[in-house]
Amino acid sequence: MDNLKRQVGIEAAKFVKNGMVVGLGTGSTAAYFVAELGRRVAAENLRITAVTTSSVTSAQARKLNIPLKDIDEVEAIDLTVDGADEIDQTLNGIKGGGAALLMEKIVATYSKDYIWIVDESKMVAHLGAFPLPVEVVPFGCGQLFRLFEKSGFKPTFRLDDKGALWLTDSGNHIIDLHMNEISAPEKLARLLDDTVGVVEHGLFNDMVKTVIIASETEGVKIVTK
Amino acid sequence: MDNLKRQVGIEAAKFVKNGMVVGLGTGSTAAYFVAELGRRVAAENLRITAVTTSSVTSAQARKLNIPLKDIDEVEAIDLTVDGADEIDQTLNGIKGGGAALLMEKIVATYSKDYIWIVDESKMVAHLGAFPLPVEVVPFGCGQLFRLFEKSGFKPTFRLDDKGALWLTDSGNHIIDLHMNEISAPEKLARLLDDTVGVVEHGLFNDMVKTVIIASETEGVKIVTK
Repeated sequence: MDNLKRQVGIEAAKFVKNGMVVGLGTGSTAAYFVAELGRRVAAENLRITAVTTSSVTSAQARKLNIPLKDIDEVEAIDLTVDGADEIDQTLNGIKGGGAALLMEKIVATYSKDYIWIVDESKMVAHLGAFPLPVEVVPFGCGQLFRLFEKSGFKPTFRLDDKGALWLTDSGNHIIDLHMNEISAPEKLARLLDDTVGVVEHGLFNDMVKTVIIASETEGVKIVTK
Repeated sequence: MDNLKRQVGIEAAKFVKNGMVVGLGTGSTAAYFVAELGRRVAAENLRITAVTTSSVTSAQARKLNIPLKDIDEVEAIDLTVDGADEIDQTLNGIKGGGAALLMEKIVATYSKDYIWIVDESKMVAHLGAFPLPVEVVPFGCGQLFRLFEKSGFKPTFRLDDKGALWLTDSGNHIIDLHMNEISAPEKLARLLDDTVGVVEHGLFNDMVKTVIIASETEGVKIVTK
């Protein structure tokens, strides 16, 4: 599995050219992309500016001497590469297993090109087997949890390793929705966007046009829409 | 003006009965309502539990010995009374002049009854002369500001008295939109709800059914829909 993740990370790094502003995703697959960029910065004198999607990725990029800027210091982002937790046939996806969905979605919003890199296990017929993360305002999150329960969304609070409510880089909590199958991602996204107390959710509908997939049997392939 | 605000504050307090869980709004008009509740708690032994919409209102309630609970400690809120910055003929409104719109909207969402109290100057033909506050995630708020500029929304960042970006009780910033006239509040609300980086906005559409208005010439009147 790690080998597949490494393959797509290296493949995606080929899209990065000198002078680009690059958005760096978060998670175990994106980390291979960041590592490959770091290698090229050191070995090939690749000149880029990077914007990151989490404090974890910032730390990795700094170690690799990849020059970082704040998202508000750049005019636009040329290309962002990130992982995904589930991708359906229309290239809608679920992200946020790493709890970085808010920053990931903000960076993606201001990116001219946006690529997901995954191993084949992430490609699904329908979204929803992976719990859908929702980033919520701490104030009133217990009320919101009960509202999700009443709606049949089977919520659970994400906890840290000390059993406290997970705190995101933006100071919010995460509620995971165990919906099993999400039949209408657009409809659910709209409902969550309209819900008071929801900062952002992990449905990334119609945001990506290119997915790089690695499989044991077929190697690396690029799917576009 | 202060006299009109006091009148509606006292009038609204008449809706509060023993045993109620009461949501306390934020702002100069709501403060009169809170003051009157405090008077009744002390003078009439009114027994209530209150949930507040800002740290400012919490401080006022504590001084008045109004028993407070966290919003997640109560099952539901029986009645919330709050001010508003503008109210149109259909009782849609703009709130957030006091920068408490997020907590105000969360408390309103879980309230069985919801009343606005205003002086007559707040009643308008169309919303939008009052700048529309939008609470935004700090990460990427500069990009969002430029997006609002491109959309013609005439944004300004709200600053504190030291000239720094305003920090809300939830750790976010406020962008005020100077749109002058908002012709379709529902459409704008949906657009803002769908915008990545927007935590909440000050359009309170179809949330209130009762408004108590004080005017110099006509005294106090109650408008319902």
